[in-house]
Amino acid sequence: MLHDPNRVYVFDTTLRDGEQVPGCQLTTPEKIEIARELEALGVDIIEAGFPASSPGDFQSVVEIAKAVTNPTVCALTRAHKGDIDAAVEALKYAKRPRIHTGIGSSDMHIKTKFNSTREEILERAVEAVKYAKKSVEDIEFYAEDAGRADIEYLAKMVEAVIGAGATVVNIPDTNGYCLPDQYGSKIRFLKENVKNIDKAIISVHCHNDLGLATANSVAGLQNGARQIEGTINGIGERAGNTSIEEVVMILKTHQSLGLHTNINTQSFYELSRMISTQMRMPVQPNKAIVGSNAFAHSSGIHQDGFLKNRENYEIIRPEDVGFPSATIVLTARSGRHALKYHLDRLGHVLGKEELATVYQNFLKLADNKLDINDTDLLSLVAHRLVKQS
Amino acid sequence: MLHDPNRVYVFDTTLRDGEQVPGCQLTTPEKIEIARELEALGVDIIEAGFPASSPGDFQSVVEIAKAVTNPTVCALTRAHKGDIDAAVEALKYAKRPRIHTGIGSSDMHIKTKFNSTREEILERAVEAVKYAKKSVEDIEFYAEDAGRADIEYLAKMVEAVIGAGATVVNIPDTNGYCLPDQYGSKIRFLKENVKNIDKAIISVHCHNDLGLATANSVAGLQNGARQIEGTINGIGERAGNTSIEEVVMILKTHQSLGLHTNINTQSFYELSRMISTQMRMPVQPNKAIVGSNAFAHSSGIHQDGFLKNRENYEIIRPEDVGFPSATIVLTARSGRHALKYHLDRLGHVLGKEELATVYQNFLKLADNKLDINDTDLLSLVAHRLVKQS
Repeated sequence: MLHDPNRVYVFDTTLRDGEQVPGCQLTTPEKIEIARELEALGVDIIEAGFPASSPGDFQSVVEIAKAVTNPTVCALTRAHKGDIDAAVEALKYAKRPRIHTGIGSSDMHIKTKFNSTREEILERAVEAVKYAKKSVEDIEFYAEDAGRADIEYLAKMVEAVIGAGATVVNIPDTNGYCLPDQYGSKIRFLKENVKNIDKAIISVHCHNDLGLATANSVAGLQNGARQIEGTINGIGERAGNTSIEEVVMILKTHQSLGLHTNINTQSFYELSRMISTQMRMPVQPNKAIVGSNAFAHSSGIHQDGFLKNRENYEIIRPEDVGFPSATIVLTARSGRHALKYHLDRLGHVLGKEELATVYQNFLKLADNKLDINDTDLLSLVAHRLVKQS
Repeated sequence: MLHDPNRVYVFDTTLRDGEQVPGCQLTTPEKIEIARELEALGVDIIEAGFPASSPGDFQSVVEIAKAVTNPTVCALTRAHKGDIDAAVEALKYAKRPRIHTGIGSSDMHIKTKFNSTREEILERAVEAVKYAKKSVEDIEFYAEDAGRADIEYLAKMVEAVIGAGATVVNIPDTNGYCLPDQYGSKIRFLKENVKNIDKAIISVHCHNDLGLATANSVAGLQNGARQIEGTINGIGERAGNTSIEEVVMILKTHQSLGLHTNINTQSFYELSRMISTQMRMPVQPNKAIVGSNAFAHSSGIHQDGFLKNRENYEIIRPEDVGFPSATIVLTARSGRHALKYHLDRLGHVLGKEELATVYQNFLKLADNKLDINDTDLLSLVAHRLVKQS
């Protein structure tokens, strides 16, 4: 199935798991616009919606399927014939349609959500895949709450759905419960114990309830998964999904993993801003990769090291994610080197002694002011202008 | 040194690594207020500032040291006598003072930041610890950029500074570079190869440039570290530091790790809000543990499962972190079960058939409206009021 064993497929669910978040709802034209940007970013699969959930969502899947060419367009369903019928119908214009069906796999979900048994759920899983397979070739199966499922049962379920025709098996940590070593071990167990596992791609779908979605996804890839599901900015149910931008930049930064994606990373920053605005979902300044401070250096120790060699404090070049540029922000924690950098920039090249004096005045000012701007800096060297004139 | 081998010490640097962030600067009274809240939260160490950096920061360390009783109060320095003198002076009122001194440990920092050699840097590290130890008993040493340092050299440095009197050795992943397995291996190597390692506590200080700070910190603890450094809301230089609330809740959720802290987790949410407001640093809604959506359930599948048994979709009880309560938000992705839940709450207990009809009207409305409020719901059942009257 995989031509290149080191290729990681990127499955974006910004328009499904992201869009279901309170306040994030989009109109169909907005979804189309984002889908086109996701296509430009180079994602392999766009999960466009859950057609059975509402008429509006059904129509969005139809329109997204029409609007994009290269990515696979995927529709979510429960393991219900009605849901699958709606998905097949919504995907009729897709060049590469995929149905994403599944059911709970943990004993808790089986008992308290479905009031059922392991055997019955396994049967429903297989039936759903077989039913969907009649209409669409590419079937992804999700074993919901796999993060808390019994591993032997999960392996049995995965084997059965691959036997029924699933091309991708998604092992979601639905509740963001696992530690990275636990989640990695789960994926490795499936890779080593499911007989027909090589007939499908293993997908990781992690949630961020404990702040571990990115680490768990990478642990999954290190142990044999080759599709990663997530959203831009990590939006999604509760504490959100895996941030696609984080996983992709980890693979790029850690070449020793030997894994690669098809993503044009230079588009991350702009797309992040667009999605944040359209979905009314702020990105915190200290968000990895796309936060407004992600490349801002503020302490004196860091600024000095950065100005000597940016790699002292920079493992990703901001331009690689389309970020305007690294910044040296002046605050009361800045040192002489940063002050000199900005005064030089403004045309004031000070000697060591003069710099030392101006630096003391700078600190007094900065202790009482949040940001020091160019006007402030010029006021600190106003005596020079007087002298010069 | 450690009485309880499973006790993890929490070192909060919100007021130092957090406060140095552009726009986050606080006045001394604000710092004192936050320090008192950190004491109430139960943190073991408060890093109060970098006294040599500015007169304002010096004074803040003095005032914080006066204001709190239980936590150790720590001051940052470079491996400079002048910095250490300032720290000693600023800490004179602290009941439990700690000096945090250190120097770069990676070849990149040694060469391009210090223009020095491994031997010379090792000497400066030992000298700084010895000098600080003359005035203060509790000395923490940081090996800056340890995440990219040669492990044999790092081990040599750690052994030397413990020999010189360091009580805590901090192994920072200054640039947020490591993968969790790499960082965990580093800590394990030190634990297994540094002869005098049991005379000190290993501390983890991770940055979030790749979104891995929390996972790396936990990997460090799994491999023998017993102090975790971080900030509330994960604020800090660039993409920030480890979020203390995430690591603490991981230890609480994963009892199998056998590790515990002294933190009153019920205070997290309120403190997060206070710090976000005072430091003008928004917390994104999908932030783990403390984001406004962290306990909001929105999709129909999740809401149905949650209403049957909240543990189907909840691994942390919101009340355990002081979060008001879990919420069932009505959107176009909600199902009948969530609609029924809210209509019941409003006193409208509908039969199956009537619910099905109202649900169709609800979906039409929700497809065109971001949030459905109680007024909207009552309009959907207005026909019943007419009938009843």
